Amino acid sequence: MSIPASPHACLLLIGNELLSGRTQDQNLAFIGQRLAELGISLAEARVIRDDTSVIVDNVNDCRRRYDYVFTTGGIGPTHDDITAAAVAEAFGLPLQRQPRAETLLRDYYGDRITAARLKMAEMPAGALLVENPLSGAPGFQVENVFVLAGIPSVMQAMFDALTDRLRRGAPILSRTLTTDCRESELAPGLTRIQDQHADVSIGSYPFFNQAQFGVNLVLRGTDANHLARAADDVRNLIAELGGACHEGGSG
Amino acid sequence: MSIPASPHACLLLIGNELLSGRTQDQNLAFIGQRLAELGISLAEARVIRDDTSVIVDNVNDCRRRYDYVFTTGGIGPTHDDITAAAVAEAFGLPLQRQPRAETLLRDYYGDRITAARLKMAEMPAGALLVENPLSGAPGFQVENVFVLAGIPSVMQAMFDALTDRLRRGAPILSRTLTTDCRESELAPGLTRIQDQHADVSIGSYPFFNQAQFGVNLVLRGTDANHLARAADDVRNLIAELGGACHEGGSG
Repeated sequence: MSIPASPHACLLLIGNELLSGRTQDQNLAFIGQRLAELGISLAEARVIRDDTSVIVDNVNDCRRRYDYVFTTGGIGPTHDDITAAAVAEAFGLPLQRQPRAETLLRDYYGDRITAARLKMAEMPAGALLVENPLSGAPGFQVENVFVLAGIPSVMQAMFDALTDRLRRGAPILSRTLTTDCRESELAPGLTRIQDQHADVSIGSYPFFNQAQFGVNLVLRGTDANHLARAADDVRNLIAELGGACHEGGSG
Repeated sequence: MSIPASPHACLLLIGNELLSGRTQDQNLAFIGQRLAELGISLAEARVIRDDTSVIVDNVNDCRRRYDYVFTTGGIGPTHDDITAAAVAEAFGLPLQRQPRAETLLRDYYGDRITAARLKMAEMPAGALLVENPLSGAPGFQVENVFVLAGIPSVMQAMFDALTDRLRRGAPILSRTLTTDCRESELAPGLTRIQDQHADVSIGSYPFFNQAQFGVNLVLRGTDANHLARAADDVRNLIAELGGACHEGGSG
């Protein structure tokens, strides 16, 4: 049930507003999908507070354990935007004004440039920019850590601007079969099928919406033929149980 | 900017489907909001894979660091539902059929009970049930760890069934002011206001939707008077900057 070797990544979602439930995170799902397409496995995500020592500890733990670390949030101009300074501290680097970031900000804001806006050019020494095609203020990269905005549209533009820097693995393919069988009917057969297809990961996700019950069976792996054979076995299992089955889109 | 002492909690969202981006998590925001109402601070959330050793390590790390740990996901009847076994391993307890859980499942399913369904009665020895008013199969509690379903509607029903067991802190109140000022205009004044109101946490959240720019300023704290004074200061700051300001709902 393990997915074949590919680069592994961790995502740090930074922001009190996510933990208070005020803001519904949208960044995890986007980054998880994009990384799967790139053949990079998102192994873990952590939602953490706007607290310097918490950010430092998590960045240091994750950059050593994973090939890539992505952070979102906390790179704006206000007092609660502390991610850049925390990442500098994690790497033991001074925080300084990045010349190219300063140029971009001055070009973007023109005579509306302010000290607060220039704070967004302060980055760990030697940071490489991640350009922001949408709203001027860039993200940045230090070694294997990518520091991105928290606003979904801005984060997405930044993410798409950095993917060329990532080492790719085999893209992770998926097939989704939806059935009206109950999970507990499927369980013994699914266990057998999972045991027979070691390089396909089979997930069983019941849903339960307005008197509608069902199960999405999601098969994931990097080999399209193996995936197709495992999907055939699942389809046969559902037929044996007398259930309906249809194949949905990818995901 | 720290929020006064209150119990601290950690949330473990368990499931490959969250990391692949296939499923958009809805549990973090619900639990974060409910805990804030109970005066319990959600200090951290982690999204982790369906992998026994990963679950064991995270449960053991978090149950020692936090007053409460909540897990969601992985307690169904299929091969990828491994949370109960992993929590038993984390506590060094045998996994065994919980008699009351078995009774509930037999009552719920009647003659449709199966071995797969009875798997959902297997829990760490001594586990206390968390009842599931919605779909039979219960969650459970071991010491300070609460193990809940992943399906949002079921998780929510379980959560509401367990809150009486939690030690409460002072409820965390919030005020949200929305303005058309830019964050960078607000930044210097906000820093000053934050410095003057140590027991109020001020978050600045720009939004950026279809040509609409703005900032939500969220003030959080446990003292309604302090919160009101800090909100007055923010309102005055916005007026000085010539911006529009309106107060939204809680959150």
